[in-house]
Amino acid sequence: MASIFTKIINREIPGHILAEDDNYIAFLDVSPLVEGHALVVPKKEVDYMYDLDDDTLGGLHVFAKSVAKAIEKTIPCKRIGVAVIGIEVPHTHVHLVPLNTMDDINFTRPKLHPSQDELKAVADKIRSNF
Amino acid sequence: MASIFTKIINREIPGHILAEDDNYIAFLDVSPLVEGHALVVPKKEVDYMYDLDDDTLGGLHVFAKSVAKAIEKTIPCKRIGVAVIGIEVPHTHVHLVPLNTMDDINFTRPKLHPSQDELKAVADKIRSNF
Repeated sequence: MASIFTKIINREIPGHILAEDDNYIAFLDVSPLVEGHALVVPKKEVDYMYDLDDDTLGGLHVFAKSVAKAIEKTIPCKRIGVAVIGIEVPHTHVHLVPLNTMDDINFTRPKLHPSQDELKAVADKIRSNF
Repeated sequence: MASIFTKIINREIPGHILAEDDNYIAFLDVSPLVEGHALVVPKKEVDYMYDLDDDTLGGLHVFAKSVAKAIEKTIPCKRIGVAVIGIEVPHTHVHLVPLNTMDDINFTRPKLHPSQDELKAVADKIRSNF
């Protein structure tokens, strides 16, 4: 069965997409730790990041850099933190999280629940900063 | 002033080194979240990961993959989690954390304090699994 991320890639379910090329896509996390929290995903549906071939893995992080730079310009933060955990969705995804404190990237904390309109507004702003 | 990681690279202070090439080094975190928690560092002393050039950034994550595979063979875990936070030491470092639960990669939790002998034993085992 296609992962929830593959369904976003295929436009079967909506996503607040920030950037996309032939191999990767980035969209907002719908349950963010902080505003601007995004996911960067290889289109190839591979569960575990370290099972990606080297080119796809290296390219994933270079693509993530371009997304991080646009988020930084949009959301006030010290820098963009990165986490790859992947216990929940079996499709590699890199979390990009605008950081002001260490606790901003603590995944055991309660998540935010922005509305679709709020997510759209954040995504529009980030897209304008690429 | 050289970062603490540059001092490890230059052998000015000891580190439990797992792997090294011309551009990158990996060693155990001395205050690990869980046993086998390692840091992967570009030798180039750049504070923020997303200020690395694309080749160095992509290569960092490919090097980290080889280290993650050796840790996986050594420490019982579901997979290796990744975090890049970098608020504390101003020299890019990728945390590799053997994960069994989400909380294993919660940086707000108390750290472990293994002895130098314990760290050496873990490093020896990981090195034998490359």
